[in-house]
Amino acid sequence: MLRSTFSWSGVFFVLAAGAPGSAQAAPPKTMAEVLAAAKPTDWRPLDPENTLLMELASGQVVIELHPAFAPRHVANVKALVRERYFDGLAVVRVQDNYVAQWGDPEAENLAERRPLKRAERTLAAEFTVPLAAGVPFTRLPDADGYAPEVGFSNGFPAARDPAAGRAWLAHCYAAVGAGRENDADSGGGPELYAVIGHAPRHLDRNVTVFGRVVEGIERLSTLPRGTKAMGFYAAAAERAPIRRIRVAADAPAAERPALQVIRTDTETFQALVESRRNRRDEWFKAPAGHIELCNVPLPVRPQEGAR
Amino acid sequence: MLRSTFSWSGVFFVLAAGAPGSAQAAPPKTMAEVLAAAKPTDWRPLDPENTLLMELASGQVVIELHPAFAPRHVANVKALVRERYFDGLAVVRVQDNYVAQWGDPEAENLAERRPLKRAERTLAAEFTVPLAAGVPFTRLPDADGYAPEVGFSNGFPAARDPAAGRAWLAHCYAAVGAGRENDADSGGGPELYAVIGHAPRHLDRNVTVFGRVVEGIERLSTLPRGTKAMGFYAAAAERAPIRRIRVAADAPAAERPALQVIRTDTETFQALVESRRNRRDEWFKAPAGHIELCNVPLPVRPQEGAR
Repeated sequence: MLRSTFSWSGVFFVLAAGAPGSAQAAPPKTMAEVLAAAKPTDWRPLDPENTLLMELASGQVVIELHPAFAPRHVANVKALVRERYFDGLAVVRVQDNYVAQWGDPEAENLAERRPLKRAERTLAAEFTVPLAAGVPFTRLPDADGYAPEVGFSNGFPAARDPAAGRAWLAHCYAAVGAGRENDADSGGGPELYAVIGHAPRHLDRNVTVFGRVVEGIERLSTLPRGTKAMGFYAAAAERAPIRRIRVAADAPAAERPALQVIRTDTETFQALVESRRNRRDEWFKAPAGHIELCNVPLPVRPQEGAR
Repeated sequence: MLRSTFSWSGVFFVLAAGAPGSAQAAPPKTMAEVLAAAKPTDWRPLDPENTLLMELASGQVVIELHPAFAPRHVANVKALVRERYFDGLAVVRVQDNYVAQWGDPEAENLAERRPLKRAERTLAAEFTVPLAAGVPFTRLPDADGYAPEVGFSNGFPAARDPAAGRAWLAHCYAAVGAGRENDADSGGGPELYAVIGHAPRHLDRNVTVFGRVVEGIERLSTLPRGTKAMGFYAAAAERAPIRRIRVAADAPAAERPALQVIRTDTETFQALVESRRNRRDEWFKAPAGHIELCNVPLPVRPQEGAR
């Protein structure tokens, strides 16, 4: 069996079971078993004030926001949504194994692009936040190549650099960020993207990430790939129109997604991670002994008793 | 700036330039510049005898085979292809951020499933090969959580464990392997899959990987996701039919893909990797200082002078 390259890292998960003859030890669980045994408090609801509902022709994409990592961007994206900036705009770019991006197809054309009301067109970058800001963080003991420490912050994959005193959201599958031009401060919200491929972690600390698709990512990941450079659509007819985006708090209660997201600061979540770090499902013959940040599942389920 | 967690690893890329006043040092290149400066010998053609052409309604998927990692599986898949086993079968499963899988929709139903001629229905597992077999390997100096060593073998992302004396192909985006049941020896080729999401590296050493999609992966990654468990399609009408699969050598010369793949055992490729490990494009503000195996681009281009 493979010995982990990372046994040096010092933080090591000790198997709670497996020693023959140790009668007390509980057997290791599969993820299904961990979730079946989870308590109601192992789940959390979405906060309607920090949830966006994006409607495409194929249905709804639910995006959770994490204002602690990008307070100005989250406020501005919500301002854009509330002044109906995105309604009638489109997904303009889908690059295979990379990102889907949406915004104003006329954004290149200053004269044509959609005017703003109270929202800002650009904002100063929020690529990272100071550790001193105290955003929650539950460390994943597994080593990572892109950051000294990785883990989860309220259900979002995140990273930290204690020496630099900074934390940031990681570009895992389904991460949502604010596109920008070459100028670091040229983002802000009018152009957004979601990761639909292998985690482009080299974008970490280079773009403001502020959200995560918690339901409906397949409505973006199955869109036709654009044939122009970087996956932009060649013709207007190819774009995927955005019917509207709403803040969930502004939708009638019956239209808010009745979803619960796994909490990442619990013993249940630690057990879930271990169930995936070393798969014990009968199918697996060689447990990995390691799990990469973006391979940790973040289960979402219908709220108990929801319609 | 982030200091890599992995400076301990000993194998460290030394920047060839950047010191002010050092007149001789060449400036670091972007990937576009590296490719523009590549020599014809930095590219290799596809071997028609080790290339599969899968035709879906949307067009062609080109799969390169790597027989050194799974000689029996490659021989059997080619035997299946040559007895037209796959022609008229279908993509039966597409699970978001995971895999697309194809084969006989009636495979569960012994009485209905398609008979074989000379090909085998199952084969002994070829999850790994002995290092002593001498498969080529160019190591990537960057550390990896899933294997003691990672790198490239003739253009395929691969991994090695010197202590165990084994090597294997890694489950990066576009990897192609042989599905199996719980029994390690229940694969063999009649059911195949391609990775269409974040690299499921926990599958490494658990399934026989023998190929890689070099063109047309988007014809698989954009397929509708199945709504049954594990992404299987709920209804026969949802499946994506396979018109046919051919070995490229059996196709008329004019129908063989005129493609060249980057060689991974060259100085040019090392420069390409470094151009992505530390992005110098103007857009990037914080070079990563690290690159993960499955984030290394493997460029494919039309053959010079091809039609």
